[in-house]
This record gives sequence, C-alpha cells and structure tokens, in this order.
Amino acid sequence: MKGIAFLLSVVALTGALLYMAPASGHADDEASPIFGIKIPPGYRDWKLISVAHEEGNLNDLRALLGNDVAIKAYREGRLPFPDGTIIARLAWSYVPSEENDKVFGRAQSFVAGAATNVQFMVKDSKKYAATGGWGFAQFKDGKPDLTAALNTCFPCHEPAKARDFVFTHYAP
Amino acid sequence: MKGIAFLLSVVALTGALLYMAPASGHADDEASPIFGIKIPPGYRDWKLISVAHEEGNLNDLRALLGNDVAIKAYREGRLPFPDGTIIARLAWSYVPSEENDKVFGRAQSFVAGAATNVQFMVKDSKKYAATGGWGFAQFKDGKPDLTAALNTCFPCHEPAKARDFVFTHYAP
Repeated sequence: MKGIAFLLSVVALTGALLYMAPASGHADDEASPIFGIKIPPGYRDWKLISVAHEEGNLNDLRALLGNDVAIKAYREGRLPFPDGTIIARLAWSYVPSEENDKVFGRAQSFVAGAATNVQFMVKDSKKYAATGGWGFAQFKDGKPDLTAALNTCFPCHEPAKARDFVFTHYAP
Repeated sequence: MKGIAFLLSVVALTGALLYMAPASGHADDEASPIFGIKIPPGYRDWKLISVAHEEGNLNDLRALLGNDVAIKAYREGRLPFPDGTIIARLAWSYVPSEENDKVFGRAQSFVAGAATNVQFMVKDSKKYAATGGWGFAQFKDGKPDLTAALNTCFPCHEPAKARDFVFTHYAP
C-alpha cells in the first residue's frame, strides 16, 4: 500500500508540474476559453496561405499560415475543409520603414513591427458543430486572450459560408 | 568522320532541346541572366520570414520566405548569412477586399491579388563575391525576367551592408 501511495503522489506531482506554465512566462500550453484550443506546436513553421493588410483599429500586416491538412485542401480547392485543418493568422503592427524608404527615395515601404496577436481556426465538425465546424482562439504573447470576444468570431465569419467560413484565398 | 558528324549533330540537337521552354509555358528550369539562378524547387513551401507592403509603382503585398539555411540563420541572428542561404520574395498586387470590408463595415481590408513576380537572393560567397556574396534573380510566371535590371539589385541592397545586404528582419 505504501508503494502505491508513493506512486500515486509521484503521478499527482508530475501532473501538477505538467500543468504549470513554463518558467519563461510563455504559457504555451494554456487553452483558450470557449473552444479549448491550445497553441499548435510548430505553427510558425507552417506554409504560407496568403498575406493581408488591415487598416483602421487593427492597422496590421498579417500572414495566414496553414498546417499540412489546410495547405493540401487549399491547393486542391477542397471545400469544406477537412477535420484537422488549422489556419493560423499571425499579425504584426504596420510600421513604416525609414531604412527601405531611403533606398526607394520616397515613403512607400511598410513592414512588420511587433507581433500583435495570433489567431487560430481549428476544424472539428463534431466538436464545433454549433459554429460551422470551426473553433476559434486568440493568443497574445503566448497566452490565451481572455478579453477577446470569441463569441463574435463565428458571426463575423458567417458571410463567408460559401467558402466554409474562411475569408482568405490562397495566394499563388 | 560520318559517325562523329552524326554524334555532333545529336549533341547540338539535344542542346537545342534543353534550351527550349517546356510545353506548359512555364520554363521553371530556365536560368535568370547574369547570376544564372534557376527557380529553387519547392520554394513556395518554405517558412515565412516576414511580410511587407510597398506603395508607389510596386503597390504590392509581399512575403519573404526562406529555405532551411536562411530560417536557421535568421532565428540564430547569424550574420553574414551562410552559403546556401536562399531568400525568396513573393509579391502580389495590392487589392482592396470588398468582401472583408463588408464584414468590418468600412473600407480597411487589402489582400493579395494576382502574383506580380518572385525574386531570389542566393548566397554563394565565392561565386558572387563581386556582389557581396549574393546572386539576384527575378521571375514572372515562372520565367526569368529578362527586362529586369539585375545589375541594379546589389547597389540598392548596399545600404543594408551591416545586415549582410538583407533588408528584411525576421517577424517573430
């Protein structure tokens, strides 16, 4: 019995340690609320879907990356996207580049500044059936953005229903 | 003598065929002038370095992708970039998105339209010693852009000498 009790406490301790945020301060294993999505490991290495610029309050430059399931579906023009699709939207502040402008001889160059936040769309047609089969999440500095109104994600994406609620087209 | 003449004409014909563009119209194996660079296979799958927007005559949205050597060097902050580094600059026309603007309720969204051209910087410190160790190339629709003034690439990149002639910073 003592052996079992010891084993159980080791298991409990290990579990507790696994749930602690890494010492770096980046709680990359913390799940986003509502949809329970964590940051997919290695997403920064994913292939490029497209790029965009949003003016207004967002005022960012953004890149859409996709995991292998997403990229394959995009390139094959497959709709709806299959379960397992994850689309990552990275965004950075929209910053004029003095350095580049000097070379061009005029103010024309805008580059990616500090990262603003990262969003994910995760396809799971059963788990997220109520929101078109998509779960939505937003992270800032590696932490789930608890202030983000994740309930508004799906209503905003609804106009793109004909393209399985995904706005971004693949950039050839 | 007849045999040699025949062999020579076979060689000449083979050479001529090798220089013909593929039937598809995409001459992906055609080398760019001056630096003799061909389109690196699979570059569209490379990892993202950063994104940018150029106004003016270019009026594009662009993505910088890097091969594994490039990405490793960027992430390690390694300068100069090692031989074997290839940086790809993809660009698309800068197009307002009516579809996105409707969702935002204002004109603010700009997305990637048709591809304009693709440029490559290839590091080979010996082969391209005269131009800072970099070879430059530009392709449009898979064909080397013979009209591009490739001689102007290096002079324009010279102001970035402290960063091994590369303007683009890695976007975290």
